[in-house]
Amino acid sequence: MHKEGPFYSIGIDIGGTSSKIGLVDQDGRLLARRALDTQATSDSEGFTRALADVALEILKDARLDGQVLGIGIGAPGVDERAGTIAAAANLPFREPFALGDMLVQQTGLPARLVKDSSAAIVGERTFGGAKGMDHFILITLGTGLGSALMIHGKVITGSNGLASEYGHSPAVPNGRQCNCGKLGCLETYVSAPGVKRTVYELMASFKSDSPLRQVPFQQMDARMIFEAAERGDALAQEAFRRTGHLLGRAIAGLIVLLDPQAVFLAGGLIQAGPLLFNAVEAGLDEHLLPMFKGSCRILPSSLGGEDTGILGAAAMMMP
Amino acid sequence: MHKEGPFYSIGIDIGGTSSKIGLVDQDGRLLARRALDTQATSDSEGFTRALADVALEILKDARLDGQVLGIGIGAPGVDERAGTIAAAANLPFREPFALGDMLVQQTGLPARLVKDSSAAIVGERTFGGAKGMDHFILITLGTGLGSALMIHGKVITGSNGLASEYGHSPAVPNGRQCNCGKLGCLETYVSAPGVKRTVYELMASFKSDSPLRQVPFQQMDARMIFEAAERGDALAQEAFRRTGHLLGRAIAGLIVLLDPQAVFLAGGLIQAGPLLFNAVEAGLDEHLLPMFKGSCRILPSSLGGEDTGILGAAAMMMP
Repeated sequence: MHKEGPFYSIGIDIGGTSSKIGLVDQDGRLLARRALDTQATSDSEGFTRALADVALEILKDARLDGQVLGIGIGAPGVDERAGTIAAAANLPFREPFALGDMLVQQTGLPARLVKDSSAAIVGERTFGGAKGMDHFILITLGTGLGSALMIHGKVITGSNGLASEYGHSPAVPNGRQCNCGKLGCLETYVSAPGVKRTVYELMASFKSDSPLRQVPFQQMDARMIFEAAERGDALAQEAFRRTGHLLGRAIAGLIVLLDPQAVFLAGGLIQAGPLLFNAVEAGLDEHLLPMFKGSCRILPSSLGGEDTGILGAAAMMMP
Repeated sequence: MHKEGPFYSIGIDIGGTSSKIGLVDQDGRLLARRALDTQATSDSEGFTRALADVALEILKDARLDGQVLGIGIGAPGVDERAGTIAAAANLPFREPFALGDMLVQQTGLPARLVKDSSAAIVGERTFGGAKGMDHFILITLGTGLGSALMIHGKVITGSNGLASEYGHSPAVPNGRQCNCGKLGCLETYVSAPGVKRTVYELMASFKSDSPLRQVPFQQMDARMIFEAAERGDALAQEAFRRTGHLLGRAIAGLIVLLDPQAVFLAGGLIQAGPLLFNAVEAGLDEHLLPMFKGSCRILPSSLGGEDTGILGAAAMMMP
């Protein structure tokens, strides 16, 4: 079907705290934006109704001159084959429900529900730095380590829709305890909490002075560590260096396996900039099979920011 | 194009020592088989001419009642995008050459040149245990660790045709020296030479008696270790156990990333049977993200044996 622009779509980013609804044009501009409290109700029908109402209000107010291609939704704990949001740990709903189908009925627009990681990688390709790329990887460093793979032009979902849990690849033998119950998963080192755990390991191992030694474990976060590093704190800098080095080593394993054009890094931790990226490059250089040297770029996601989820979800509906 | 059977194809398996040419039917039966000395000439035209002559002779002698779909060729060091055999380290040819195109001209049959690992995974799916599978991984344990990926029904070749070098994924920090120049690559542990290196590490670490202590390093091979293990030698058994455990850990990383239906193991080392497979399962169980439990089977390749390469190459041309 040939369509003529300008095109628009609605992107919905379901998060544990808030759910964001945005109107996006074909160039990735966010024209309108609203948010709902995800935890306000555990009633999935009421929640869906509220999302539909906001989406329709946004469209009504926008008075568009082109075609609205539909509603893309990215959420955690999505079963893409069943088209449902599962009862994910950090969402309030008790039963899986078909949010996409329900939105179709309530808005009359096409809708598509995907994992948030799938939306993110499509967003990077549609609106971000991966334009024109068929083989790339997106790694998001936040509370955990999220991953998404686009290989030969397709998002890799796997045989059970479970693919791209690279945060739980075994990185360190008998390493740190992970939420999943195993030891040494990559995200216990390479994530915001991972950097914090590394800081505490360094405080135990070394005697160097640091203002971070004044902060109780429960109160420390990655931003404090980043700010200490910016002010020249050696311990904080070493924590980012070790995090980046281990990430570079993990990326070396991804590159020899999948031969991507680029690996994009996203999420709060990439604000550390060269402190992190230089260590990633060093870890990569130390471990990458020489024939791959220079074959793959490590790049910051160009969609960084809190509306990335909206853009990715909206991108799912773009031509 | 709709075709009617019975179908046949020629499979050519280019190896460092000998190159095998076989006629295969649509059920994977090897109807005729010949071999040439790969090292007999460094003249790529003469080599190609010899392969073409043998292929045509086999067809002439076979007096087939059906359609010959073409010639599949699997070889090391193939650049699948260029369609050439590169000047691989263990082949005698000094310049890359387009073996596939040259065979088309010399035989009049369609021909397709692919990496030996690509041929192997297509063979497993066409004639082996992966019939009907769209998502699986093949790991071949020999002189190195070979890997091949079939994901969403396609062989993963990567953006530069370099994918599936999982033998060089970083497995052990500051680990064993690899031929590639790096330290700790998976295949320095999980391969025939890897098992041998583990035996020597165990001889150094422990004092247990073993007939393997009589054998100089240069003379020991994986078969000796396997035979010692079969006779109950504890040190040899422990070497296989550690090899399998590390392989299971590496497979856990592949499963969380790609969510395959099965991982097939091939190559000489799998003759160790339960000794190896039980350790793989233990390593997997210890490291696999619980939500993947039971999602993926670890199976021996059902094409084991020296004609696997012919069958895989022939499978490339099957409908």
